Amino acid sequence: MRAVDIIARKRDGGALTREEIGNFVTGVTDGTWPDYQASALLMAIVLRGMTPEETAWLTDAMVHSGVRVDLSNIAGIKVDKHSTGGVGDKTSLILAPIVAACGVPIPMMSGRGLGHTGGTLDKLESIPGFRVGLSIDELKAALARAGCGLIGQTDQIAPADKKLYALRDVTGTVESIPLISASIMSKKIAEGIGALVMDVKTGSGAFMKTEADSRRLAESIVAIGNASGVKTVALITDMDKPLGRAVGNANEVIECIEVLKGGGPADLIEVTLALTARLLVLGEVATDLADADRRARGAIQSGAALDRLRQIIEIQGGNPRVVDDVSLLPHVDGRHLMTAATTGT
Amino acid sequence: MRAVDIIARKRDGGALTREEIGNFVTGVTDGTWPDYQASALLMAIVLRGMTPEETAWLTDAMVHSGVRVDLSNIAGIKVDKHSTGGVGDKTSLILAPIVAACGVPIPMMSGRGLGHTGGTLDKLESIPGFRVGLSIDELKAALARAGCGLIGQTDQIAPADKKLYALRDVTGTVESIPLISASIMSKKIAEGIGALVMDVKTGSGAFMKTEADSRRLAESIVAIGNASGVKTVALITDMDKPLGRAVGNANEVIECIEVLKGGGPADLIEVTLALTARLLVLGEVATDLADADRRARGAIQSGAALDRLRQIIEIQGGNPRVVDDVSLLPHVDGRHLMTAATTGT
Repeated sequence: MRAVDIIARKRDGGALTREEIGNFVTGVTDGTWPDYQASALLMAIVLRGMTPEETAWLTDAMVHSGVRVDLSNIAGIKVDKHSTGGVGDKTSLILAPIVAACGVPIPMMSGRGLGHTGGTLDKLESIPGFRVGLSIDELKAALARAGCGLIGQTDQIAPADKKLYALRDVTGTVESIPLISASIMSKKIAEGIGALVMDVKTGSGAFMKTEADSRRLAESIVAIGNASGVKTVALITDMDKPLGRAVGNANEVIECIEVLKGGGPADLIEVTLALTARLLVLGEVATDLADADRRARGAIQSGAALDRLRQIIEIQGGNPRVVDDVSLLPHVDGRHLMTAATTGT
Repeated sequence: MRAVDIIARKRDGGALTREEIGNFVTGVTDGTWPDYQASALLMAIVLRGMTPEETAWLTDAMVHSGVRVDLSNIAGIKVDKHSTGGVGDKTSLILAPIVAACGVPIPMMSGRGLGHTGGTLDKLESIPGFRVGLSIDELKAALARAGCGLIGQTDQIAPADKKLYALRDVTGTVESIPLISASIMSKKIAEGIGALVMDVKTGSGAFMKTEADSRRLAESIVAIGNASGVKTVALITDMDKPLGRAVGNANEVIECIEVLKGGGPADLIEVTLALTARLLVLGEVATDLADADRRARGAIQSGAALDRLRQIIEIQGGNPRVVDDVSLLPHVDGRHLMTAATTGT
């Protein structure tokens, strides 16, 4: 099996076999496929596409380039939420403690900032002392204690994705729904979850600018998840303007705390609770979305979700007192809360 | 100007500017464009195409990656013939001495074998002592004495093409009419000729399998040549079966000598004289194709063309006696002349 023949087949619009895709992913991981052959194939995939079957094989090969975390010792259906990202998107920091407080374990593996948007990891690290670099064993311990762990991608999870992403970034081959979905899902499947809610942001502030593209990405992700034993639901949510009022890492943490205290902006609450409700249904602690919504709101009103956030911060080495005294967070121009308007986004 | 932006524009079907194409070719030559970015752009070009204007700019940038040979001290219009190659294609060795004998200087820069076909250089090197590695100055001296020099590509001629061709070969990006025509024409323009006849082989034994593709390649090449001040004419000739009877380097040299002695197979004579006639008209020693044909046949009948071949061989270090005693050429299985049928092509 020669790389050039695999490239030529995709160039000519053909579908690759499972073995050919495996050869490519293994070759990228161990270096037997040089970057110049990988980038030629990536460009051919961008322009010729991949069938759902090819995309599932690509994802599976990327999962198997590293370890698939075994969370079977943690009781319950493990869930996660992933977003394609957008300005002011901070739902993770709110929904993770709510979901955990409602009894569904949520091992959440997040990313760094992409372009003009901060990533969840960057926001978490604005909490003094907070460590996102937990080992897999530390993640399991956090899940056992608090039902939640908020971590970054480790080198063991889908290393092929890490290499391919770096190459795609400099070769104009990011914009491909099969490649984007395989990249997202390889990491989610490898983290050992049983169910996933995908938040596909659409609009001018999002990576997917059109409703049609967002729908295609959502469908691709749902197909891969369900084919891999991860029950997957996707919501397409609006990102024509920033979510909530706060933009900037520490500012966003403060706004999340406000929501968990029963306040916060309506648009942020609405999107977060919509995602949370799906997670609670998939986690099988709620009978339907209405029941799930009641449980989520209850966890906020009772203070259980805020308590859970304190516990998560403490377990991961941060100062839990930030929840009650936001002045412990880094200051921005002497103000904690900047509106989207004043930050000029 | 970032490589990734240039790649993305072509990926999205846009036309590149002259500056962007120059940036790419310079970057490939000096290494500031890494191979993985070059191959991504090459694949985007294969799948999105290039306008005639972009193709002309690409060719020009490739010419300027090296030197453009100055043959102005050699009187007359310098001509060359190039073929896309095919089994048994040996017209160069026949037409070069005829054209030179008719008074048109022909500096012929040839290639090595491609795939299953031997190149002109390989055939010439079957003549004991024959040197194809002449310097530019040696080429000029040969032209001044015999009106002909038969050489290989030097490192000074279109070095960008050499790098790009090596990359295309391993990344499935050979099959592109703009890239093929720019590759051929950059070398032809750089060798300092004033006119070119292009022999585009079409059919099962050729690189271009269909008449339509052959026509598109011919049109692309003619457009580039004429835009660059090299008067260019293309013929599309049949390559569904080997040309002539002989296949194999030494065997083909023998068949060429036979034609120059007034013998040889009809199909080979016909194609060779058709190409020769265009060269004599472009070289302005014949008034029209009929006049050119008479002159070419006259150079064979008088022995002038065969004499010129002896002279060329002698100037380039070979043994000119092979013309009169083909047993001086390497033997193949004790026979010199193998038919296409017995070589199994």
